[in-house]
Amino acid sequence: MQVLKERIQKDGKVKAGNVLKVDSFLNHQMDIKLFEAIGKEFKRRFADVEINKILTIEASGIGIACVVAQYFGVPVVFAKKNQTKNIAGEVYTSQVESYTHGRVYDIIVAKEFLGEGDKVLLIDDFLANGKALEGLAALVEASGAELVGAGIVIEKGFQVGGEIIRNKGIRLESLAIVDSLDEVTGKITFRE
Amino acid sequence: MQVLKERIQKDGKVKAGNVLKVDSFLNHQMDIKLFEAIGKEFKRRFADVEINKILTIEASGIGIACVVAQYFGVPVVFAKKNQTKNIAGEVYTSQVESYTHGRVYDIIVAKEFLGEGDKVLLIDDFLANGKALEGLAALVEASGAELVGAGIVIEKGFQVGGEIIRNKGIRLESLAIVDSLDEVTGKITFRE
Repeated sequence: MQVLKERIQKDGKVKAGNVLKVDSFLNHQMDIKLFEAIGKEFKRRFADVEINKILTIEASGIGIACVVAQYFGVPVVFAKKNQTKNIAGEVYTSQVESYTHGRVYDIIVAKEFLGEGDKVLLIDDFLANGKALEGLAALVEASGAELVGAGIVIEKGFQVGGEIIRNKGIRLESLAIVDSLDEVTGKITFRE
Repeated sequence: MQVLKERIQKDGKVKAGNVLKVDSFLNHQMDIKLFEAIGKEFKRRFADVEINKILTIEASGIGIACVVAQYFGVPVVFAKKNQTKNIAGEVYTSQVESYTHGRVYDIIVAKEFLGEGDKVLLIDDFLANGKALEGLAALVEASGAELVGAGIVIEKGFQVGGEIIRNKGIRLESLAIVDSLDEVTGKITFRE
């Protein structure tokens, strides 16, 4: 997605440890006009399949998922990272290892919001080691819903997540795949 | 907002401890068409003021804020609840006591995304004791930005938050104000 790649080149910042900081437009401050373009693009790429629900994970996936959902005309469910007293009753649970936070946490979805007959598109901002997406896919599988595919805004192509997800036979659409980050020069190289 | 009140009556569930569970359409599963109606309504109520940024707080405020932002044509910034290694550098910080989680946590916003010249609308799903909104208002004040107002989807009118925020002179627009919850009968009473 050309407009996204240009934006990453313009405003993305390369930090030590293969970190690509895009918090000026994607996951802290959020450029809603860009999100609309992202929504249109995901709809174009998944135009051939039936989708009735979008599943994402808190926190930074939620904003993108909600704007994307407008182009599909479907509700969004977000997996929560911590049990709160507002989610009583039965939930699906999966464990996720966070690259950003360096710890393992549970993600949960209430059973009433995901189940047989649902055709689910996963949406998230980043794909790196694939743990969050694997966790979401596990929730979908546990629920008996159908996993139609996954839409990712930025895939770190030099990490294993994309390969893991594709090898599982999950249809993965990444709008920008970053093949390398040079923390000395700041150069960001995209996959063609 | 009539359509919202009807939805709360239809799908909201009253739980012990004055909990109003609306996670089937507002803060776990999210009805994006309802969010669009909410966005239109906030735009109508704040049509007379200039706004160039929406500030919300993770997690459940983000989806609403992003859809609302489309009607204002402005970006969204969300305050983060935990410092991660992706937010280095300077941030504004405020402390918030969570009613839902029963603990105190820090919220932060990177200084580069909030500052002098910004005209900020706060958006959140719930207003109960007002702590989250007070925390967001404190971040705006610390940044030198102008706080134009606050838009809340559901205000619990029997808790102190609304009064605290209004007494501070903050323009507060709540789309539904719940005056009482009866956990025995499940009855939800709205302020006229």
